[in-house]
Amino acid sequence: MTSLRREAENDSGLAADDLRETWRLLSPEDRLEAFLDLPRPEAEDFFLGLPARDQLELLFAIPADQRRSWMRLLPPDDAADVVQQTVEDEREALLALLDEPTRREVMALMAYAEDEAGGLMNPRYARVRADVSVDEAISYLRRQAREHLENVYYVYVNDAEQRLVGVVSLRELFAAGADRTVRDIMSTELVTARGDMDQEELGRLFAAHDLQAIPVVDDQGHMQGIVTVDDIVDVIQEEATEDIQKIGGTEALDAPYLAISLPKMVQKRVIWLAALFLSEMLTTTAMARFEAEISRAVVLAIFIPLIISSGGNSGSQASTLVIRAMALGEVKLADWWRVIRRELFSGLMMGGVLGVIGFSRVILWHVIFHSYGSHYLVVAITIGLSVIGVVTWGTLSGSMLPFLLRRVGLDPASASAPFVATLVDVTGIVIYFSIASITLRGTLL
Amino acid sequence: MTSLRREAENDSGLAADDLRETWRLLSPEDRLEAFLDLPRPEAEDFFLGLPARDQLELLFAIPADQRRSWMRLLPPDDAADVVQQTVEDEREALLALLDEPTRREVMALMAYAEDEAGGLMNPRYARVRADVSVDEAISYLRRQAREHLENVYYVYVNDAEQRLVGVVSLRELFAAGADRTVRDIMSTELVTARGDMDQEELGRLFAAHDLQAIPVVDDQGHMQGIVTVDDIVDVIQEEATEDIQKIGGTEALDAPYLAISLPKMVQKRVIWLAALFLSEMLTTTAMARFEAEISRAVVLAIFIPLIISSGGNSGSQASTLVIRAMALGEVKLADWWRVIRRELFSGLMMGGVLGVIGFSRVILWHVIFHSYGSHYLVVAITIGLSVIGVVTWGTLSGSMLPFLLRRVGLDPASASAPFVATLVDVTGIVIYFSIASITLRGTLL
Repeated sequence: MTSLRREAENDSGLAADDLRETWRLLSPEDRLEAFLDLPRPEAEDFFLGLPARDQLELLFAIPADQRRSWMRLLPPDDAADVVQQTVEDEREALLALLDEPTRREVMALMAYAEDEAGGLMNPRYARVRADVSVDEAISYLRRQAREHLENVYYVYVNDAEQRLVGVVSLRELFAAGADRTVRDIMSTELVTARGDMDQEELGRLFAAHDLQAIPVVDDQGHMQGIVTVDDIVDVIQEEATEDIQKIGGTEALDAPYLAISLPKMVQKRVIWLAALFLSEMLTTTAMARFEAEISRAVVLAIFIPLIISSGGNSGSQASTLVIRAMALGEVKLADWWRVIRRELFSGLMMGGVLGVIGFSRVILWHVIFHSYGSHYLVVAITIGLSVIGVVTWGTLSGSMLPFLLRRVGLDPASASAPFVATLVDVTGIVIYFSIASITLRGTLL
Repeated sequence: MTSLRREAENDSGLAADDLRETWRLLSPEDRLEAFLDLPRPEAEDFFLGLPARDQLELLFAIPADQRRSWMRLLPPDDAADVVQQTVEDEREALLALLDEPTRREVMALMAYAEDEAGGLMNPRYARVRADVSVDEAISYLRRQAREHLENVYYVYVNDAEQRLVGVVSLRELFAAGADRTVRDIMSTELVTARGDMDQEELGRLFAAHDLQAIPVVDDQGHMQGIVTVDDIVDVIQEEATEDIQKIGGTEALDAPYLAISLPKMVQKRVIWLAALFLSEMLTTTAMARFEAEISRAVVLAIFIPLIISSGGNSGSQASTLVIRAMALGEVKLADWWRVIRRELFSGLMMGGVLGVIGFSRVILWHVIFHSYGSHYLVVAITIGLSVIGVVTWGTLSGSMLPFLLRRVGLDPASASAPFVATLVDVTGIVIYFSIASITLRGTLL
């Protein structure tokens, strides 16, 4: 398994791991009981590793006289998340559990949304002045650590007005000669974030620069706190989960699959399914317009699922690729023209390949089974041309839909595979019958 | 934008950022030129932030006499990644650029696959013995930092045989009284990984424990190195991208959307589209079996896209939710029975809702447009029942397919939305016509 213990191997250690494994499946009562059974140090580690939602649940469940010590265990950014999980009325009660300076920090953090850099930020970071010596800086850091420091990956160098002027990694500080000054060794090439930066963008910033922590500064360059990369790991997982669920055609569940209640899950799914179902009814309307053609040439009906699904599949592919490229920052709104050219070409190529396969299928079946009567050749041509048209159209519209959604301020990930497939189904039918009405005129129609 | 510079704001700083933005769009020649134009310190930061593939490209492009210093800039785990990007013949040449101890470290790391914990591991970590005092430990760390230390988030405590016995965060070390021993303050509750742990599992371990680094140990508990969380951010992004692309029905691109060559992209996409197209041909075969029914009741054909797409959509939803829950470790193989019960119930509920909508649609159109003749009621019942059956079947098969794929050792994410939709289309047609042949017997059929 993942966790090896050399010394101090004991039952309770395994109990904490077991609890972590089964946590999501336990009832609130069982969670509380198992949690209170853990020895304090392990319970603390376990508590700090929980999502804010579960921390809140535990805080309200544990005996009132223990609540203060658990609340104070949380670093300010996590405490702010917990407070933001609850309704307005109960926030005061939670904030009252904190000491005065921390309460002020937490309230300042709550001004930011939970999914912004400011909401992920920790105001307790290691800081020194530029003109102290390396030895003095290390002593000073040891003093800060004794008080309230959470993280020491980088030491931030602020001027007298708390404006960020440089950064030095602890490794560099350690490695430097004792009597050089911090200014000598600090780096002034700073990667910083603003408090209102979206967490998705922040995730990309971490990924691009491979940093352990990024400082948050205001407009005037005053340092406000740091966001550490461990908080970003959760964020990146969450954002990817949301996108994947939307691409699959559900509302984001916002909870683990097995933990969400069945009625709630059905509700989140059926809304989208019903919307798609109502849109898909347009296919019935479209088909009804061609009822006369179908009754004259039933062979046309037989190929409908094949043709419209080829458009749906190519559309799902294109939209998924563009959605992910947008989420990673690889493709921006302004790239729409580059994308449309790539997709037009790809669509024609892929449509060509599938069209040839479709054409050959009709010819082959005719040769083997004599399936399509004397007009097999025009049928084959109709199928081949329709597939080329539908695939090209599916690819183009699938790739442009995320741009359209983002342009009007919606989440591009809402261009889900089922949504694109539905859109393309309707137009696919129109394309198919329009081509058929030309190619089959005078023969079958 | 994201990067504020207080002091030392200069053109070259902006140049590095610009280069990062446009890198993926540049030709190899333009990349090299822009890179060589950067001042050395910035070029170093930039180089270290590149993916291994691009680092390799640069290493081969830059003048031979500069190659050694760039290669030696890389920490051992990154150097191993770069060496593994190239073909066997060229590896020796790259390894020869390293100093002897580093070369040995890199070769040891290369024994692991790039996507295992051992491949992400850095063998240079901060270490002390348990029985030294805090003051001695800090001095010793400063000596290590001067030599070869990369990271100091945690200080690992090894015994004489280099077996890991404890860990102390730098913050704790700093905060402790100078004359306490490391043993007094170290934690023996260790979260560790094995060298062959898959990177996806490693990502979950980081997310669950909120750690900055996780030590890698062998079977006997000997410490081999550490994996730091900044390497995991990239891993998590990559894994999510792969899953999203597979869910969308493409092979994973393994390159940014705008950077991959058009023929290569078309190739990765058309293979899946063609496979789906060939499978979807089964719908034509299925439909052909019902040709007689269709020619007697053309109204049946009109609802085909609506009915089969409702199965495809519910199937895509279910498979996507299960794929993501599996990737996050929320759902394991052994949970299949829990999932099947949830999905059976969800499928029936959602099918019921859509069935009622479908039924009402037929009745409504009959009342308003007199669309479906005197047998409108049996048509409405046929549509309603078929939708219930197809949605339930779609939901069940969509949720079970990822289990099946994982069971036989394939990636559950290959149960893409288009794949599930195709599978459900064929069975949907059979379900629809089977129900119709019962309900419409004696009236339309």
